[in-house]
Amino acid sequence: MPEIRKDPVFGRWVIIASERGLRPNEFRPAAGGGAGHVCPFCPGSEDLTPPSIYTLPAAGGGWRLRVVRNKYPALVSEGSPDSRRDGIYDSMDGMGFHEVVIETPEHGLTLERMPAEAVADVIRTFMLRVREIKKDPRIKYVMIFKNHGRNAGASLQHPHSQIIAMPMAPLRVQQEIDGAADYLTERGTCVFCDIVREETAFKKRIVAGNADFLAVAPYASRFSFETWILPRSHSSHFEDMPETLAPALAEVLKTALGKLSASLGDLSYNLIVHTMPVQDPAAEHYHWHIEIMPKLSHVAGFEWGTGFYINAVSPEEAAEILNSGRKYSV
Amino acid sequence: MPEIRKDPVFGRWVIIASERGLRPNEFRPAAGGGAGHVCPFCPGSEDLTPPSIYTLPAAGGGWRLRVVRNKYPALVSEGSPDSRRDGIYDSMDGMGFHEVVIETPEHGLTLERMPAEAVADVIRTFMLRVREIKKDPRIKYVMIFKNHGRNAGASLQHPHSQIIAMPMAPLRVQQEIDGAADYLTERGTCVFCDIVREETAFKKRIVAGNADFLAVAPYASRFSFETWILPRSHSSHFEDMPETLAPALAEVLKTALGKLSASLGDLSYNLIVHTMPVQDPAAEHYHWHIEIMPKLSHVAGFEWGTGFYINAVSPEEAAEILNSGRKYSV
Repeated sequence: MPEIRKDPVFGRWVIIASERGLRPNEFRPAAGGGAGHVCPFCPGSEDLTPPSIYTLPAAGGGWRLRVVRNKYPALVSEGSPDSRRDGIYDSMDGMGFHEVVIETPEHGLTLERMPAEAVADVIRTFMLRVREIKKDPRIKYVMIFKNHGRNAGASLQHPHSQIIAMPMAPLRVQQEIDGAADYLTERGTCVFCDIVREETAFKKRIVAGNADFLAVAPYASRFSFETWILPRSHSSHFEDMPETLAPALAEVLKTALGKLSASLGDLSYNLIVHTMPVQDPAAEHYHWHIEIMPKLSHVAGFEWGTGFYINAVSPEEAAEILNSGRKYSV
Repeated sequence: MPEIRKDPVFGRWVIIASERGLRPNEFRPAAGGGAGHVCPFCPGSEDLTPPSIYTLPAAGGGWRLRVVRNKYPALVSEGSPDSRRDGIYDSMDGMGFHEVVIETPEHGLTLERMPAEAVADVIRTFMLRVREIKKDPRIKYVMIFKNHGRNAGASLQHPHSQIIAMPMAPLRVQQEIDGAADYLTERGTCVFCDIVREETAFKKRIVAGNADFLAVAPYASRFSFETWILPRSHSSHFEDMPETLAPALAEVLKTALGKLSASLGDLSYNLIVHTMPVQDPAAEHYHWHIEIMPKLSHVAGFEWGTGFYINAVSPEEAAEILNSGRKYSV
């Protein structure tokens, strides 16, 4: 069983999950990704994954989307959310859920090239799974994320996202929520609503948008071509978004990823849904959003040591390049 | 001039440094690292770097160590440390210093294979530069770090470290110091002194050690084979270490890196000196130390979204593998 350990200085949690070392990696041919490798997420290989938790059927038979438990889970459903003392240290069982959303049966597709309706299916599936998972009162936070490409830490190429449900709100999430709460106290508004207003007026950092969502290169971008997607209306919980907005979000997501991929070529990125802890009530100070972090270079010691980032492309340049369709090479 | 921008939600600082995009990268042959490439850090290429700030002469003529300004600096010495308001956002001039320590004239060497006395020279040079730089009252924090190998974000192979001096204490540094202060308040001792005591007694996470320093696989290791080096005696400021301790630190550093390199082969790592803000007085609650983070895999979306890490090798296993000299492959 995985174990969750707490760093006694920083308060940061770490999952020690020895089984994860065994998972295959397509990008590392020596470890089972060479010729003749069978993709466990392709149709016909359903017996290579744990059974489906949720399936959307395809019109002509088969499936168009599947959710399965991760075969090499970072957290498992058994165990207690109580912490133990181990000398000066604290730990607890690695309790939680780890699911994989197989976004399409087509191995070689990408989100930006999928039909808008299929991307909307992926978004509705994320919401549905969170609403289901949060019925378990032990679960405090549900993290939805996607690693695309080798430099972003993906181990399989077939389009997929992951959902990890955990028994506490992670430190970084709590810090972001606290920062937003401080902003509300000081200035009387939601910081993300202010960002939407400021960026709509300033225009030069906008990457995509429609009546319901705005995609921008954020003012303090940590990574070259970092892109955030924010709902224009205030809402703290992603899973409470009206389902009727899924097509509008799919449209902005496809446009933003399409521009990134046109300018950056073979793009690696991490996509993360930032949202409130699932058992918390709707909040005035927090506003869910999506952060897309292209990985053009390796994060180095300075960033690790300081939490301070060095970015060689200003967000204004990034938006200009993305909107012109110009190629950018590192 | 680089610009420092503050994220309005998180309070995190970002350096927007467009000139950094121009620097060469040996690991990317298309960008000037191919055959015929001249290393700017090798003897004979001194005119390819800015002039020396500090040099240690070699016994037979020439130099055995050089400190130069970074040719593509993240921060520059002109400018003011005052912040400006830009709509809802805050920014300031990218003011500071960015130096490179060329650790040896020998291109193909590594710290662990350098003579102990040469590693002690590098350590004494770090201390000397910090003591010099902190005479500028605008400088609040000096970060010493080393990126070794492609996966750790190094752009040049020749053994070197970097020193970045900045006009504020970075968020992550402040969080670590605050965490240590909370521990002192709650338990009445320095958390790092407690870690030294606990690990010395527990033994199973020790990687190297002598009378003055201890190298351990930390209890809540974020990365497989993460290794920390702590002074056994309490001290908050790295630059105030007695110079007579440099050989003992060099010995433990060489042993720890030697074991990592023996077990992990072609090792990429980030090494970071964690220390107090330079203008702050000696503190009872903080204890400087070195963190070495091997980069065996890419950090992925879950880590970015949560500040929560998934590690497939427990620190007890890591110490056992390193001490046995066994090879480990990802």
